[in-house]
Amino acid sequence: MTAHTLDVVCIGNALVDVLAKAEDSFLQAHGIPKGSMTLIDEARALHLYDAMGPATEISGGSAGNTATGVASLGGKAAFLGKVRNDQLGAIFTHDIRAAGVAFDVAHAASGPATGRSMILVTPDAHRSMNTFLGAAVDFGPDDVIEDQVKAAAVTYMEGYLWDSPPAKAAFHMAARIAHAAGRKISLTLSDPFLVNRYKDELKDFVEKHVDIVFANEEEVCSLYDAADFDAALQAVRAHCDVAALTRSEKGAVIVAGEEVHVVDAVPVKQVVDTTGAGDLFAAGFLYGFTNGYSLYDSGRIGAIAAGEVISHVGARPEQGLAALTAAQLDTAKAQRA
Amino acid sequence: MTAHTLDVVCIGNALVDVLAKAEDSFLQAHGIPKGSMTLIDEARALHLYDAMGPATEISGGSAGNTATGVASLGGKAAFLGKVRNDQLGAIFTHDIRAAGVAFDVAHAASGPATGRSMILVTPDAHRSMNTFLGAAVDFGPDDVIEDQVKAAAVTYMEGYLWDSPPAKAAFHMAARIAHAAGRKISLTLSDPFLVNRYKDELKDFVEKHVDIVFANEEEVCSLYDAADFDAALQAVRAHCDVAALTRSEKGAVIVAGEEVHVVDAVPVKQVVDTTGAGDLFAAGFLYGFTNGYSLYDSGRIGAIAAGEVISHVGARPEQGLAALTAAQLDTAKAQRA
Repeated sequence: MTAHTLDVVCIGNALVDVLAKAEDSFLQAHGIPKGSMTLIDEARALHLYDAMGPATEISGGSAGNTATGVASLGGKAAFLGKVRNDQLGAIFTHDIRAAGVAFDVAHAASGPATGRSMILVTPDAHRSMNTFLGAAVDFGPDDVIEDQVKAAAVTYMEGYLWDSPPAKAAFHMAARIAHAAGRKISLTLSDPFLVNRYKDELKDFVEKHVDIVFANEEEVCSLYDAADFDAALQAVRAHCDVAALTRSEKGAVIVAGEEVHVVDAVPVKQVVDTTGAGDLFAAGFLYGFTNGYSLYDSGRIGAIAAGEVISHVGARPEQGLAALTAAQLDTAKAQRA
Repeated sequence: MTAHTLDVVCIGNALVDVLAKAEDSFLQAHGIPKGSMTLIDEARALHLYDAMGPATEISGGSAGNTATGVASLGGKAAFLGKVRNDQLGAIFTHDIRAAGVAFDVAHAASGPATGRSMILVTPDAHRSMNTFLGAAVDFGPDDVIEDQVKAAAVTYMEGYLWDSPPAKAAFHMAARIAHAAGRKISLTLSDPFLVNRYKDELKDFVEKHVDIVFANEEEVCSLYDAADFDAALQAVRAHCDVAALTRSEKGAVIVAGEEVHVVDAVPVKQVVDTTGAGDLFAAGFLYGFTNGYSLYDSGRIGAIAAGEVISHVGARPEQGLAALTAAQLDTAKAQRA
């Protein structure tokens, strides 16, 4: 196995976030499930957009956010996902490249417009996502850049893509390429409803192909029909090499066979917008994991990155995370493997 | 003269702001004049966009910001300006309508893309604007909706448009329509460099057609080649009915013939982004002026609206200004004309 020249390749939905404030009554009036992600079609997207308030556009997408987090930490990251050759596609492409992430997948020249997620932020700072996948849904095996997957220590996949058959095929292909090259595969479960929809398929994929799984408490409990977090923890540790389980303000638990670490959340002055917390935790953990940090310190870097992203609006880091991490992770370098 | 059914019609460049952080060294390397607005062509826009960091898109344009401020105060506002039928045009249209502003100008079906202003925010919170006008430059007399101008107490024009001959013709046409209907015309000088480029033309337009002029200190000094603010004040009061002169943290001076008022700036906890301060001062003043407030209280509403917009990123109000004004302007209602 040759040395990796990329730390992480992230595969996910290429989306532009359209953020607006909304009252709870707006969610009720439009039948929007609070706090989760709902897939919507183009007609519904246009209808909701007409009804919602003035918005701000900012590049997003779960795995795209993770890729920018890895780059912000000083890691080498690439992103695989699909946009159209329209203005939103140009915005997505600019933003991820400007963050230092390689993004070389060909833009679709026809078909649906670049995908977007209309994120309604209620006064309690919760966000409810309404995602029109658009061009992202056409991501398939042909879009997997083999050389990048071979070159990356970890290929990380966003569970949200599991809804799309071509993307699922791309996941399987990327897993074969990565493992044949002696690399690792990582998956985030993304959403408890998605886990429910594809429970058996996802369990099978995790067991057979995933080396590092990311999940929050709800997602991992859903995957194993576990009554509580501890039961899910015991189930997942039998199924993949490393599991990084996040629990919001309760911090995270990293489990790798016999090795178990409890990582506290990093306190933040004010939680402004929780969008991207899980994405940035994954970024920090994977940066640490691919750069010789211990599992515990990798989890701590994840917590620092998540803490940064929830302290401002938007799901990508605003501060250079490398400097922030160096300041907060004072003991980490001494503990490098 | 019939009662007006619109308070303010705002004519200006329809632009989407593309905001990114930048170091001073970036401005120097790319020859960007700090703190002012520079018009750029499409090639330069693409070049700068490639070079700059990850950005956030948010609808802007000086007069568009003013229109949303009037609506946020509870006033009736319309906007006249030009976008193309592209995604940025759809974003601009959504945002201004969602803010409660009528925007009924036909979208261009061909020609340049919707205009944008790339705003680089340096660590000292100053912003340097690089504007590609795109479709906005094609705004002309045919786009002036006569019924709206006739129905509006004030038609307000953004000086930035003076660079475009068709827009200048549209200004003259709107002034004729408004005055024939017994309405008032207002102009903001927008930019000291623009004032320098068109000094004689602008002085002539102000003298002959403008009832209410808005200018900051630099702009009004430039118009009259005045050595200091007081000299400019004396010059402008001879030339139009009302002048509202803004001086950042020094507040504003409202002058109308013999009547002169000094309005203090509203203190804000932290100045986050000064973009839109002048636009929102104009919004507050015009809302007051068209709703029976005294000149002094109109200036105070302007100061309150400007204070809100500089306390967050983006050039349009985030809070409902009506409630904010009611809270802060406790004595204003008693003082209504």
